[in-house]
Amino acid sequence: MSQQIRVGIVGYGNLGRGVEASLALNPDLELVGVFTRRDPETLIPARPETRVFGIDALDGLEDRIDVLILCGGSKDDLPIHGPELAARFNTVDSFDTHARVPEYFAAMDAATSGERVAIISVGWDPGLFSINRLYGEAILPDGDTHTFWGRGLSQGHSDAIRRIPGVAAGVQYTIPSEEAISKVRSGERPTLSTRDKHTRECVIVLEDGGNEEAIRQAIVTMPHYFDEYDTTVTVIDAEEFNREHRAMPHGGFVIRSGQSSPETSQVIEYRLALDSNPEFTASVLVAYARAAARLRARGQFGAHSVLDIAPALLSPDSPETLRARLL
Amino acid sequence: MSQQIRVGIVGYGNLGRGVEASLALNPDLELVGVFTRRDPETLIPARPETRVFGIDALDGLEDRIDVLILCGGSKDDLPIHGPELAARFNTVDSFDTHARVPEYFAAMDAATSGERVAIISVGWDPGLFSINRLYGEAILPDGDTHTFWGRGLSQGHSDAIRRIPGVAAGVQYTIPSEEAISKVRSGERPTLSTRDKHTRECVIVLEDGGNEEAIRQAIVTMPHYFDEYDTTVTVIDAEEFNREHRAMPHGGFVIRSGQSSPETSQVIEYRLALDSNPEFTASVLVAYARAAARLRARGQFGAHSVLDIAPALLSPDSPETLRARLL
Repeated sequence: MSQQIRVGIVGYGNLGRGVEASLALNPDLELVGVFTRRDPETLIPARPETRVFGIDALDGLEDRIDVLILCGGSKDDLPIHGPELAARFNTVDSFDTHARVPEYFAAMDAATSGERVAIISVGWDPGLFSINRLYGEAILPDGDTHTFWGRGLSQGHSDAIRRIPGVAAGVQYTIPSEEAISKVRSGERPTLSTRDKHTRECVIVLEDGGNEEAIRQAIVTMPHYFDEYDTTVTVIDAEEFNREHRAMPHGGFVIRSGQSSPETSQVIEYRLALDSNPEFTASVLVAYARAAARLRARGQFGAHSVLDIAPALLSPDSPETLRARLL
Repeated sequence: MSQQIRVGIVGYGNLGRGVEASLALNPDLELVGVFTRRDPETLIPARPETRVFGIDALDGLEDRIDVLILCGGSKDDLPIHGPELAARFNTVDSFDTHARVPEYFAAMDAATSGERVAIISVGWDPGLFSINRLYGEAILPDGDTHTFWGRGLSQGHSDAIRRIPGVAAGVQYTIPSEEAISKVRSGERPTLSTRDKHTRECVIVLEDGGNEEAIRQAIVTMPHYFDEYDTTVTVIDAEEFNREHRAMPHGGFVIRSGQSSPETSQVIEYRLALDSNPEFTASVLVAYARAAARLRARGQFGAHSVLDIAPALLSPDSPETLRARLL
């Protein structure tokens, strides 16, 4: 393993911890360390052998790290620190603010100066779901693509219900409609709104004196978040909440249905069922870190998205082995 | 559309007809014509505007066809004619004899002389299923991949039952076991043989005087084909057979289940439900013909498999548009 790919993790929330766990499953990648903007002394890594450094320790490591996996958030962290780091290192990140992808791509592409590689928006949506939308459209041009999310925990909606006065704890699960999925799978190409396709299930713990009925009304009528959906609210106690609702499951479906000739329906379905959303996103990031190192070795510099990366670049095996084994 | 990609179809069986239909849905590709080893006068194309030529008419068209889509069979046709044509044209084919893929790849790579592009083994298995096996392995290295085929018509097994004396007509459907699929989806990583995963359903028409019981025994005990499977045989009349069993549906599942950390299961599932196997394979070939033209334009010559092709190359849209629309 003298040719291991040397990886640094920047940021150590759920995603960074997931990358640490995934690297342990990939012997051709080596973790140099976790780099944090917090006081490194306060951070206890999940694996005792993981070294933790302050972010400034990256100075001078440009030749000793092949790829940095950026595990910061898309709202405040990546737009600033992504280009800063891409100006010095090869990077992979999970930037997921859809509307700002073109702008972020341009900033990362410029930061690489044609001398480094940056792979942006890696994960499952954007990421694997984007790839499957593309394959579906390209293969069945006369068709419709439907994305369903869930059953899964929505961070944004969970934050919204926790902000309501009287709510001590809460999570929101997005549930795909079985009826809508069946319609799409049948190839009948229905017209469905996001509302038709999903319901929202809220599980909350009340503060002492919290008014259950008022809180329920505040949730189901909340503009943008809940008012256009069928929403249920279930109140439970703190003990059950801590036991049953601390995981971060997610997943969903991308279904392309179309006609290859009049009367002939074809359906392509891609489905993820994830016990842990951040660990899965981290697993995807690690596979694309391998691809980033290879693009660098080939001199294919600049910013890339997952749509630009050949599948074979994700695997530790050689193209010859992959052809013999997988075709 | 002055920059249409000019495509030729070689061979006009079910697959060639599917390519003809698919090209009509892709306005950036233009069909130059069908080239056949049969007498072109005897061949009536599905679309009246399609021109049909003898195979020798390809001589001198090297600069007027961007990509040839080879629609011959993997057993007798492609091993001989694939390299002959790849020595003169950019090609895409659906070579699917698994054990001979490395040998065929080498022959096609040599035939391109580093001046043309050949994309081999395009379709769904090998093809899209191979790609999904690769993504699954790379993202969840601690996991198992299971492929289920069906519900679908198996050409090889249908041929086998039709060879039994007394059988006037017959088809064999491969049926994936719902129980096995459920086990794999659950993330419990069962050990399953191909037999555990599929049953075989034969539908036959008897010749006058055909001995139903003897034929049934001959089928269910046939070595390699049926003896290791739970096989059912249903006898129907010719009229029902012609009404209900002339289509070529197929499909299947590739499911990767694995752990991203000790207690955390993640499941990736890819599913195809195809009304027409040859039309779908043809649709995939056409998308990769677009990729072949682009590889040629970039000077990425030689043989490639679907594992080597970035998803974005399959789409008529630009990388910018794809990023803005699909990420």
